[in-house]
Amino acid sequence: MEKKLSHVTPAGAARMVDISAKNPTVREAIARGTVNMLPSTLELVKQNALKKGDVLAVARVAGIMAAKKVPDLIPLCHTLNIDSVTIDFKLNKSNIEITATAVSTGKTGVEMEALTAVSVAALTIYDMCKAAEKGITINGIYLESKTGGKSGTYQRKRP
Amino acid sequence: MEKKLSHVTPAGAARMVDISAKNPTVREAIARGTVNMLPSTLELVKQNALKKGDVLAVARVAGIMAAKKVPDLIPLCHTLNIDSVTIDFKLNKSNIEITATAVSTGKTGVEMEALTAVSVAALTIYDMCKAAEKGITINGIYLESKTGGKSGTYQRKRP
Amino acid sequence: MEKKLSHVTPAGAARMVDISAKNPTVREAIARGTVNMLPSTLELVKQNALKKGDVLAVARVAGIMAAKKVPDLIPLCHTLNIDSVTIDFKLNKSNIEITATAVSTGKTGVEMEALTAVSVAALTIYDMCKAAEKGITINGIYLESKTGGKSGTYQRKRP
Amino acid sequence: MEKKLSHVTPAGAARMVDISAKNPTVREAIARGTVNMLPSTLELVKQNALKKGDVLAVARVAGIMAAKKVPDLIPLCHTLNIDSVTIDFKLNKSNIEITATAVSTGKTGVEMEALTAVSVAALTIYDMCKAAEKGITINGIYLESKTGGKSGTYQRKRP
Amino acid sequence: MEKKLSHVTPAGAARMVDISAKNPTVREAIARGTVNMLPSTLELVKQNALKKGDVLAVARVAGIMAAKKVPDLIPLCHTLNIDSVTIDFKLNKSNIEITATAVSTGKTGVEMEALTAVSVAALTIYDMCKAAEKGITINGIYLESKTGGKSGTYQRKRP
Amino acid sequence: MEKKLSHVTPAGAARMVDISAKNPTVREAIARGTVNMLPSTLELVKQNALKKGDVLAVARVAGIMAAKKVPDLIPLCHTLNIDSVTIDFKLNKSNIEITATAVSTGKTGVEMEALTAVSVAALTIYDMCKAAEKGITINGIYLESKTGGKSGTYQRKRP
Repeated sequence: MEKKLSHVTPAGAARMVDISAKNPTVREAIARGTVNMLPSTLELVKQNALKKGDVLAVARVAGIMAAKKVPDLIPLCHTLNIDSVTIDFKLNKSNIEITATAVSTGKTGVEMEALTAVSVAALTIYDMCKAAEKGITINGIYLESKTGGKSGTYQRKRP
Repeated sequence: MEKKLSHVTPAGAARMVDISAKNPTVREAIARGTVNMLPSTLELVKQNALKKGDVLAVARVAGIMAAKKVPDLIPLCHTLNIDSVTIDFKLNKSNIEITATAVSTGKTGVEMEALTAVSVAALTIYDMCKAAEKGITINGIYLESKTGGKSGTYQRKRP
Repeated sequence: MEKKLSHVTPAGAARMVDISAKNPTVREAIARGTVNMLPSTLELVKQNALKKGDVLAVARVAGIMAAKKVPDLIPLCHTLNIDSVTIDFKLNKSNIEITATAVSTGKTGVEMEALTAVSVAALTIYDMCKAAEKGITINGIYLESKTGGKSGTYQRKRP
Repeated sequence: MEKKLSHVTPAGAARMVDISAKNPTVREAIARGTVNMLPSTLELVKQNALKKGDVLAVARVAGIMAAKKVPDLIPLCHTLNIDSVTIDFKLNKSNIEITATAVSTGKTGVEMEALTAVSVAALTIYDMCKAAEKGITINGIYLESKTGGKSGTYQRKRP
Repeated sequence: MEKKLSHVTPAGAARMVDISAKNPTVREAIARGTVNMLPSTLELVKQNALKKGDVLAVARVAGIMAAKKVPDLIPLCHTLNIDSVTIDFKLNKSNIEITATAVSTGKTGVEMEALTAVSVAALTIYDMCKAAEKGITINGIYLESKTGGKSGTYQRKRP
Repeated sequence: MEKKLSHVTPAGAARMVDISAKNPTVREAIARGTVNMLPSTLELVKQNALKKGDVLAVARVAGIMAAKKVPDLIPLCHTLNIDSVTIDFKLNKSNIEITATAVSTGKTGVEMEALTAVSVAALTIYDMCKAAEKGITINGIYLESKTGGKSGTYQRKRP
């Protein structure tokens, strides 16, 4: 099977792919990403969480809102109505793992919504911790899985 | 020196840091990130570039526009007037390196603008290539350097 | 029946409620609010209206546009396609009563759209009259009624 | 002194007031508002807060972000760079009092930013509690005080 | 048949037309517009295109993104989910002809999406060429054709 | 003097021009445009205006708000703080002439703000009149004059 880019015409010009002939189905996408920081920086996030602080809540809200802004951020993405977005954080010793799950009933997938939610939640954590550590690094943003739509289920292979 | 989070009150609540007493200075920030993909996927991007295609142009525009949207994306970031944003791509065998440079004259830095430009350019490349490869991974988004402002110059240390 | 908050997980974290299993129905919501001002300030609004002025038209447009911005303003609200918004003003001696009616065909209600339309129309009236009176007060923003959806019809009880 | 509406021309047409000849000064505005609900609904908010839940954090973020969206919401408001926004909640027996403080250094005041922050924080509380009580009412949104600018200091009179 | 304005009430007030009773159909709209400039300015665009430059790609992206922003730009337009947008440029000796095609499956047409895509692509060309020629003029923005919906097919008559 | 495009690098890539070294000055731009329609359609607009209707007020608000959205619409435009926007309409027998004036104190001009205000006001008139006449055409959008900035005053030559 020949691989090709769907968002450009044969002449190479950008286009929004025509989905008018597709059928609406329930679609789900799960994306992951990691924010790496010094244990001492991560300790500040944990202390804030312990005293009912807002740091992770702000990052979660930022990620959820960013999923809704995808058509405004990613030029060739379709506008779609999202049924659900959830964002989970796992705090390890020197990193925070972010998982975002997006669900939609429509003619196009929600991979970009899940990936964007992870990215903006990660950027928000960077923003809130940058006074303590400028070297924080965002790593490994990828699609974990997707279901629904004509191309069916995708599950990322473990290395 | 005690490390702390600047975007939360002592009680842990989110706040936008008060910058009214700061002086405007010229500030610059450079951020980096990498999009890893199969050589066969990257070949599609290169072929599109060869025939004057839009793939990298779309990613560049998306990154520049995203830098301007930072106050709307990252909840506690200040609105600021950006003087300049540039985005460069380096196409290697199995990845695309993205570098974004943001400049502003103001009371707060442009680190988040540069990091967001890189992130959204990377997400746009993912979007335009995902029909060919869903396993594309975004890696190593970090601040390379910043200048200006009270905290002065920061240069990321090479490992 | 136990009352609970639908927008948080059992652990307390914010989430966008999953509506993927719900059926689309026609939904309507009516919201009300009042802007209280001095009779002399209200007289200015009336004089502007008499000479075909724009004050109430601007407030009406602001309210209608705000209804469309709800997913961008209220963090956990779903994106939805609004079928109709209308905004009416009743000018009394020392207040303006605002009524907004929103209609949508979808899986989630339009209460927030109607309430937000009223709120932003009220804020716009404040903005346009604040040079004359800074003490203007917005009062009594509430949901008058809603129809459609699984929870059915709601009608606010008169005191 | 004759009272008049500054946002309309003598002919009654809407206009954005020309501030090009004004000098930038530090300006602050404080606004207030109240969300009235049943004690049993407010108990749910308190329980969520007790277990480090996100309800008030989401409302706070929504209010802060809304302050930055004022030029996009209130048609004749100027774009301005906000130096700081903070939002405080006081939980009483049957209501939540919201106070928003906005600071800016510029040629126009931040009254609308503070009032809009209160309004959207209140709407967000409504949204998160509406599954428990649809009769929640938003009351008494007003400007508490402002400082800076040519018109100087304003302090709301206590009744 | 009496002609009338659909977006105002009999009393003359603005309203968003109620489309809740309409049936979704596939709808397409094609709009055109022309950007007139000196042959020497157009030569710069052609040279940029020859060396795989971004000028037309940026204008194309701007037009596509603007089509998605219509509900936020045109006050009484409905939010809708666009299935496809494409933008084509034809470079003549002293003008660039722009054609935009928008497709949607829904209860309201996409004329405004196609017309707005043309307008913003034209404005973007102006922006990118204005350092070379300030006298560039945008002309002849009109609807070429539409299909779908209750009013059926429209085809602009040739003069 | 050699003409060139300022928004692309020598290699042809899009960039936001660096204005960090420029000095802020007061700048003004005036733009014009015309909406051509049948006299019978224009009569509907006049009748609406006669009964204090909202048609022209909605178009005026749309134009003013669009001027504030320029950085979000035109990819390489800088964010700037607008001091003033006014929009005037002149109703002739078979067309409406639109004039927009934008003022800003800053490091970059407001030509795009004035041109965009005219364009979106024109599109809004189209939207509100399209039920009566689909053949309405927008013509002659151009910059009438600009003052301020290093390039100084520009005045369009009369043909």
